[in-house]
Amino acid sequence: MAKNLSIIIVEKDRDRALQIVDSLRASGDYEISVISEESGLARRIAQMKPDVVLIDMTNPSRDTLEELALASGPMDRPVAMFVDRSDDGLTKAAIEAGVSAYVVDGMRADRVKPILDAAITRFHMFQRMRAELAATKLALEERKTLDRAKGILMKARGIDEDAAYALLRKTAMDQGRKVIDVAQALVMAAGLLA
Amino acid sequence: MAKNLSIIIVEKDRDRALQIVDSLRASGDYEISVISEESGLARRIAQMKPDVVLIDMTNPSRDTLEELALASGPMDRPVAMFVDRSDDGLTKAAIEAGVSAYVVDGMRADRVKPILDAAITRFHMFQRMRAELAATKLALEERKTLDRAKGILMKARGIDEDAAYALLRKTAMDQGRKVIDVAQALVMAAGLLA
Repeated sequence: MAKNLSIIIVEKDRDRALQIVDSLRASGDYEISVISEESGLARRIAQMKPDVVLIDMTNPSRDTLEELALASGPMDRPVAMFVDRSDDGLTKAAIEAGVSAYVVDGMRADRVKPILDAAITRFHMFQRMRAELAATKLALEERKTLDRAKGILMKARGIDEDAAYALLRKTAMDQGRKVIDVAQALVMAAGLLA
Repeated sequence: MAKNLSIIIVEKDRDRALQIVDSLRASGDYEISVISEESGLARRIAQMKPDVVLIDMTNPSRDTLEELALASGPMDRPVAMFVDRSDDGLTKAAIEAGVSAYVVDGMRADRVKPILDAAITRFHMFQRMRAELAATKLALEERKTLDRAKGILMKARGIDEDAAYALLRKTAMDQGRKVIDVAQALVMAAGLLA
């Protein structure tokens, strides 16, 4: 069986925390921890590595909201945030901080579970996109490095592009390294020697 | 003054539609249209080009949900979807179809406005990321095309990389075209002639 989802609930109000815990217990098997103290939150969440963070605030200031949102690591895990009141600015701040679900005045026991599901799905969708963006940027960077390395070899040895690439590949194979690593080393060395 | 936000509400139930319209009217100046007929929805929305689409469904099947989500053009504008009941599968389907806000059992007049704000913000954040991804992919593709074009010239004319690039650039300037367009034409022509 898969490991139970671990959830950290960030909630100052003890009664509301119990409400949330009860409604989650009723809807599935979760490992639930409640943090009622905001100081040191980022460190504690980073140590506990929960699958999901659920933050409840009655009436946050923009600073508190941004602080809690960032402390909960919204790029590393889904974060759902419940507030009683909001305005355009707060909503924008929360969502741009990476909060996966931002719910205004929606803290009702039977609604916690579907919001959690939505937060998890949205987080994964966002993650996939971030991963694709990171991979594409890396591919572009590697291509630039490879081009630079080929250019350096072509000039230094008076060989053509194909020969330059063949030389990089042979060196990589001889040394049990990747072509891109050899290219990177060459570009760096050429920079040092120039 | 900025143009009022135009909103299309997709809602079969006349009473609920009026409720939503009233709550929106109370919270700002919007151009609101209600569509109660689902057939031809995609075409009508595409024609009307609303800033936001708000879909309300009591108890959708997965097929209906996906159909309405896609018909509303969730890649072109923020779409907020309200349902009375959901499950993991439906939530996932809605969010992966690109719905910017998916709200379970949350159709309460005073909550429509903040959800709309959240949907708009989330849509723009997603759009920025999609735009960045598209731009990075394009840069990578263009770089590959440029490399191929340079390679073709280097081989055909026995010149080095710098000379090949200079030749592409001169041709582009002479013809008032972009270097990448000249490179693309060359790659295509070489493919035809090979």
